[in-house]
Amino acid sequence: MIVLFTDFGADDIYVGQLKAALLDRLAASTLVVDLLHSVPNHHVRAGAHLLAALQSRFPAGAVFVAVVDPGVGTSRDAVVLQADDKWYAGPDNGLLSVVSARAARTRTWRIVWRPPAMSASFHGRDLFAPVAASIASGNLPADELQEIDGLNVQLGPEDLAEVIYIDHYGNALTGLRAKALARTASIAARGHRVPYARVFADAPKSSAFWYENSIGLVELAVSRANAAAMLGIEVGDPVTIVA
Amino acid sequence: MIVLFTDFGADDIYVGQLKAALLDRLAASTLVVDLLHSVPNHHVRAGAHLLAALQSRFPAGAVFVAVVDPGVGTSRDAVVLQADDKWYAGPDNGLLSVVSARAARTRTWRIVWRPPAMSASFHGRDLFAPVAASIASGNLPADELQEIDGLNVQLGPEDLAEVIYIDHYGNALTGLRAKALARTASIAARGHRVPYARVFADAPKSSAFWYENSIGLVELAVSRANAAAMLGIEVGDPVTIVA
Amino acid sequence: MIVLFTDFGADDIYVGQLKAALLDRLAASTLVVDLLHSVPNHHVRAGAHLLAALQSRFPAGAVFVAVVDPGVGTSRDAVVLQADDKWYAGPDNGLLSVVSARAARTRTWRIVWRPPAMSASFHGRDLFAPVAASIASGNLPADELQEIDGLNVQLGPEDLAEVIYIDHYGNALTGLRAKALARTASIAARGHRVPYARVFADAPKSSAFWYENSIGLVELAVSRANAAAMLGIEVGDPVTIVA
Repeated sequence: MIVLFTDFGADDIYVGQLKAALLDRLAASTLVVDLLHSVPNHHVRAGAHLLAALQSRFPAGAVFVAVVDPGVGTSRDAVVLQADDKWYAGPDNGLLSVVSARAARTRTWRIVWRPPAMSASFHGRDLFAPVAASIASGNLPADELQEIDGLNVQLGPEDLAEVIYIDHYGNALTGLRAKALARTASIAARGHRVPYARVFADAPKSSAFWYENSIGLVELAVSRANAAAMLGIEVGDPVTIVA
Repeated sequence: MIVLFTDFGADDIYVGQLKAALLDRLAASTLVVDLLHSVPNHHVRAGAHLLAALQSRFPAGAVFVAVVDPGVGTSRDAVVLQADDKWYAGPDNGLLSVVSARAARTRTWRIVWRPPAMSASFHGRDLFAPVAASIASGNLPADELQEIDGLNVQLGPEDLAEVIYIDHYGNALTGLRAKALARTASIAARGHRVPYARVFADAPKSSAFWYENSIGLVELAVSRANAAAMLGIEVGDPVTIVA
Repeated sequence: MIVLFTDFGADDIYVGQLKAALLDRLAASTLVVDLLHSVPNHHVRAGAHLLAALQSRFPAGAVFVAVVDPGVGTSRDAVVLQADDKWYAGPDNGLLSVVSARAARTRTWRIVWRPPAMSASFHGRDLFAPVAASIASGNLPADELQEIDGLNVQLGPEDLAEVIYIDHYGNALTGLRAKALARTASIAARGHRVPYARVFADAPKSSAFWYENSIGLVELAVSRANAAAMLGIEVGDPVTIVA
């Protein structure tokens, strides 16, 4: 299975080209799943924490094409990461580093292969997709990869006390994992102090609450309303835990 | 064939997870079609009428995962509906009830199965997708279902004289079926009175008209312009038939 | 392979229906790729140039369903075009004509087949999808087609000195092919004069540049910012080359 995770936008001209590029090297029966194409534009840190939270829902052997790549065309490396039982192809700019830091076992390769014609701006299509397709076809292309000690850019395994995504309902996902957090704690953001509720239906109407969302993160929400608009929250805003 | 019909947003983190969940129980060759992920947020009534109009385009045996579920995490039932020759898995909150009321033959089951780990907020992924995948694989999982007399929440088979969807062109779909409507009738909405035209090209430039759209519903439109913006129309607005 | 290229909107109710219609005549193993559903609404000229630039990324034998069709329901013809080694089904309104004019070899057919029930507004679903599916299945349906000399509406092979698409980053694609353009040339748009840069990282922060994008077109951009918003650019705006 190939899983796509990018900031290319689901509606733009990029994802279709990515899929055409995958097919050149991919068995037709391999499934390609669009996980997310709305990582906040160019926001590597948010993408790294979203990817770490989302990857757990996918089966062993899944190969992620993960591209949030504002430095495309510069000297940043192109890499393949094996983290526990999953694979990732993408830029070495921090995007894969939270997954890497939280894994029990990792191996890392620099992609040394270059296609005959490579654009300066779309390595997702020209570099990461072909390499990922080879891996998903069961063939780690040894001549295209050079094993290295680890990623150059490291963000570390720690939680990120920031808003990392706002969904179309207006719910604000943070980079905080909810499991370790006491349900008596509040979350402070943009001057608001937001208490816990287990489910939307338990929260008082029109007032914000935080809950453990379906991928284990602390999420700020308002029942049947747009929390981000109500609280004035944007991606990148810091949040703090108030005990 | 699995058909997805939700208010999860095509661009958000939910649809990819839904697909990963389907795969656990699904033959790889089963087709998964994204019918609509832009049902107006939390708008069960609009969703019920959209689903009733759209389902007719899909073949016998299709299994719909239909989720507009603001009450997720409360005591509302999770159900499977067989309506004529198609299947539906979703919440018992009215969403499936227009399909059910208009069908010649129905059977209904409560989903009694629960997965080992079930989130409080994403039963589409954790409950409806696995059950739908089993049915699409030709296996009605008898131990996971308990047959019941019918849905608890009933909206009835009648048309809905409301705007139920606004598309990206700005066309406003209503819950009125056009077949029974005289072409001499006008539709009143937000103080405007809108006459009939057969096709866009027949309508006077820059003036609103209603027509029978491609799924049989009364739709308000303006040729090459945004009707909803011009008329100030929103989802949920009442419409009336003026003979 | 079937490739979808429309202004139907990826989020609306149209693409799912298109796919269901394809399946009636298509081998289940045929791949269906969503290339673009965000062609600017009703903008045939922009669509024609986008299609010409994008089609080159797809393999020989690909069958495009190309629909930007504001004249649906009028007397414009429905056609099939074979241009070099690819196929196209769509309206004869200019949308296919840039591809046609730039091809070395073409054949053109009028679609004379009509389905038992054809809507007045959705020929993509009712006409083009079934015919394209037949072709993709390896069967040119001779009884449904009448060969003609060429397209009725011709736009010609020349570049289009206009903004034809604005992506979700705010980058503005033009209909100018970059290959022939000197890197010393500037592009003028909306009173701004925009110089060349090879990659985003080479451009000065917060100032606009043009570059050869990944499909060979001149594109106006600002590194990590929204060029279209900064420059006040919209689809359809003329651009000029300043030597």
